[in-house]
Amino acid sequence: MAEESGVRGCMVIKPWGYGIWERIQRLMDDRIKAAGVENCYFPLFIPLGYFAKEAEHVEGFAKEMAVVTHHRLIGDDKDGLVPDPEAKLEEPLVVRPTSETVIGAAMARWIQSWRDLPLLTNQWANVVRWEMRTRMFLRTSEFLWQEGHTAHASRDDAMAETLRALEMYRSFAEDVLAMPVIAGEKPENERFPGAVGTWSIEAMMQDGKALQAGTSHYLGTGFAHAAGIQYQDKEGAQQYCHTTSWGVSTRLIGGVIMTHGDDDGLRVPPAIAPHQVVILPMLRDNDEDEALLAYCEELRAGLAAQNALGEPVRVLLDKRPGKATGKRWGWVKKGVPLILEIGGRDAAGGQVSVLRRDRLWNENGKPDFKAMAREEFLATASNELEALQSELFEQARARRDANIVRGIDSLDALTEFYRDDNRYPGWVELGWSKPSGQELHDVVKQLKELKLTIRNTPMEGEPVAGNCIFTGKPAVEKIFVARAY
Amino acid sequence: MAEESGVRGCMVIKPWGYGIWERIQRLMDDRIKAAGVENCYFPLFIPLGYFAKEAEHVEGFAKEMAVVTHHRLIGDDKDGLVPDPEAKLEEPLVVRPTSETVIGAAMARWIQSWRDLPLLTNQWANVVRWEMRTRMFLRTSEFLWQEGHTAHASRDDAMAETLRALEMYRSFAEDVLAMPVIAGEKPENERFPGAVGTWSIEAMMQDGKALQAGTSHYLGTGFAHAAGIQYQDKEGAQQYCHTTSWGVSTRLIGGVIMTHGDDDGLRVPPAIAPHQVVILPMLRDNDEDEALLAYCEELRAGLAAQNALGEPVRVLLDKRPGKATGKRWGWVKKGVPLILEIGGRDAAGGQVSVLRRDRLWNENGKPDFKAMAREEFLATASNELEALQSELFEQARARRDANIVRGIDSLDALTEFYRDDNRYPGWVELGWSKPSGQELHDVVKQLKELKLTIRNTPMEGEPVAGNCIFTGKPAVEKIFVARAY
Repeated sequence: MAEESGVRGCMVIKPWGYGIWERIQRLMDDRIKAAGVENCYFPLFIPLGYFAKEAEHVEGFAKEMAVVTHHRLIGDDKDGLVPDPEAKLEEPLVVRPTSETVIGAAMARWIQSWRDLPLLTNQWANVVRWEMRTRMFLRTSEFLWQEGHTAHASRDDAMAETLRALEMYRSFAEDVLAMPVIAGEKPENERFPGAVGTWSIEAMMQDGKALQAGTSHYLGTGFAHAAGIQYQDKEGAQQYCHTTSWGVSTRLIGGVIMTHGDDDGLRVPPAIAPHQVVILPMLRDNDEDEALLAYCEELRAGLAAQNALGEPVRVLLDKRPGKATGKRWGWVKKGVPLILEIGGRDAAGGQVSVLRRDRLWNENGKPDFKAMAREEFLATASNELEALQSELFEQARARRDANIVRGIDSLDALTEFYRDDNRYPGWVELGWSKPSGQELHDVVKQLKELKLTIRNTPMEGEPVAGNCIFTGKPAVEKIFVARAY
Repeated sequence: MAEESGVRGCMVIKPWGYGIWERIQRLMDDRIKAAGVENCYFPLFIPLGYFAKEAEHVEGFAKEMAVVTHHRLIGDDKDGLVPDPEAKLEEPLVVRPTSETVIGAAMARWIQSWRDLPLLTNQWANVVRWEMRTRMFLRTSEFLWQEGHTAHASRDDAMAETLRALEMYRSFAEDVLAMPVIAGEKPENERFPGAVGTWSIEAMMQDGKALQAGTSHYLGTGFAHAAGIQYQDKEGAQQYCHTTSWGVSTRLIGGVIMTHGDDDGLRVPPAIAPHQVVILPMLRDNDEDEALLAYCEELRAGLAAQNALGEPVRVLLDKRPGKATGKRWGWVKKGVPLILEIGGRDAAGGQVSVLRRDRLWNENGKPDFKAMAREEFLATASNELEALQSELFEQARARRDANIVRGIDSLDALTEFYRDDNRYPGWVELGWSKPSGQELHDVVKQLKELKLTIRNTPMEGEPVAGNCIFTGKPAVEKIFVARAY
């Protein structure tokens, strides 16, 4: 999937991991384009001056950015190559940690009148946030993502776009990644720097921790004021735009791994598997190999001509040298949904032998290959892939739902619940009074002592009863509290 | 297409330009994958130490790189935000100008035995080369590209891959971009830093200058020695790998603009046009609009159900408010191959009115709309797109061929030929003795005085007669000499 690169905090994404990212990109990009958003590309470097314009924004990011200060190296007798002092930049450049500022400057050029709104842009790009502790796919100094940036005439339009993106992420996570999530609003202390409101999707990993898997921000008119994004309204008056931004990243791959992995490796949901089916011919370096390969090739073509999950089936005939058994475990570890092993006898008898990645073992602890007629397999393969996709989701949802605890009615009870570090943590659903400012700060501090964070307030607003366990005031909404990545 | 970003040397690629890049990416990526090359992703940052390992390589790049020296900013009472002196990196990081070194380090980890070869990787990424003079799409500090990196057991295998990539680029440029190119080997002085040999495709722009549009390098074992890329051969001995690298970039878009543009804007070859057909309904804000839109939507669906150039036709029904005429010129300027304007009368009579981007004007200087029955248009649209694709290529090839001069037999004649700066320059084909070292250096210097460079030695090796105009020795191969971007 990925490995340490030797460059601090940066990973190398290997072919299988990158193949999953390409699937995520293509399917997410289709959804982004279907919403009328157009892809662009904006500069990697942001002049310090741009960045300093939005005070809260810079406050939130200034601590963890890569800064370019020189544009040339020079040989030095003592140290070898060093930055050339003659080539010091007048104004340092920041490697983008996110692009609100530089895209805001473009929006200010592109928008004149209400006719130019909404302006809906997105970019697929790499970003850098200097991280002290990094973890593959979840927290790396460089990561890949998409960032949507939109400008609107009114708060209502911008809020509708913010929630459209949130719903796009929720359905993508659940329908494509088979990863159940809670969509909701982050508390004030967890807002994106400079945002008026931040929404997220939160997934529960198999270790019970929460993963913030995507965010969508309503930025109000703050960035518009900082960058001068103005439009002339129908009455001829100058107005500031309301802007939004929203993104998901290679972190989603980390979420997939920690949602669907098992003791034998990864289980990749068929919708994002680079290969959904791998065919392994049991080659014997003899005269029968040719007929066997011809049979396998016919099988491959038969599968590729079918559709599953709305797209042609992606199937690989793995002809590499080596024993089928050895290759099998490589593909099991990678998480290919269906693995076929085909021997000479299968070919002669028109049979196939199928292993489903989520049902590896039979009662006797042996690989649970099912033998069936080729025609039967071809008739059912697409259903199998679709069933595997939804069963992965149902498994994850059942686990998540079983590990959300309700009814904790005091801070002591919460403390008691999380006291044992070896206990499976799960999430706690609470009603709270939605404190703000110093009062919220105190709550966050109490939670931090328990290594807990507030994840979000779910969108489905059921009425809540009772009092807030932190403030003692009447509860006004639900929150989820959890340990998190 | 693109605009200055306000960040020195970096451009913003706008939706139409980025849409063309997405088409180029998808079609090139298909070809790369079809050759068995797997996509990966490698770090943006390269530690200085990695970079310094290959001496010629660092010599060639050290002069124009962005250097990250700090990982944090801090508020300063006098200057506002500044790089935090406490957060200075022990080893500066270079923003990748190309990735041989960091990918070489990965190859050294991934390759153990001859069974691991060939190793064929590619990445789509942004790179940075600090440029003093920048020009949109042709020479920008940051640009987007793909870089293929492969490792092989032998020189022959690596050379075959180098030339496979070169041929992939040649056919892509000609078949997809409709841009005729000369594929050939660069002279010694134009080699990629650290390469044993560099091959290129060279295109003639409408102003007669040459554009290097893609390169493929045979790197020998130099990078393998620097990074320790070794394999155990079948006899059990340790050997160094032979490596290659090859790339094309957003510069291709510049090539398309300067090959196919005319007085009315760009003409985008149908194979890479984000929309191949745009339908403009002549809306009148009255009761008839509904029937008109229904007719246009039917037309759109009829086109989208067809194939041209091996893919479904990409068609946009442009329903934006505004006059069709105004919108027409916007699409003409962008270079959409076919523009349809549909009025109420067309809809009622089952007609369409078609403008072909490469045949804008009739004899009377009016837009050359052809009226025809809808069924006739639907039956011929795919052929029209394919004809336009090949006619753009033929036009460009005829222009290129008409502007290659042969028979110049002395340095004086060459000087005379290029003396007039206002003259259309064109290219000169010469036989030369393939000088090397100091002798080549002198030739390059002479050419530089004429603002000329040697482009490449074409692959098609016809015998050459006569003597080299630079050295007086017998000519051994052909070269193209030209002014260049």
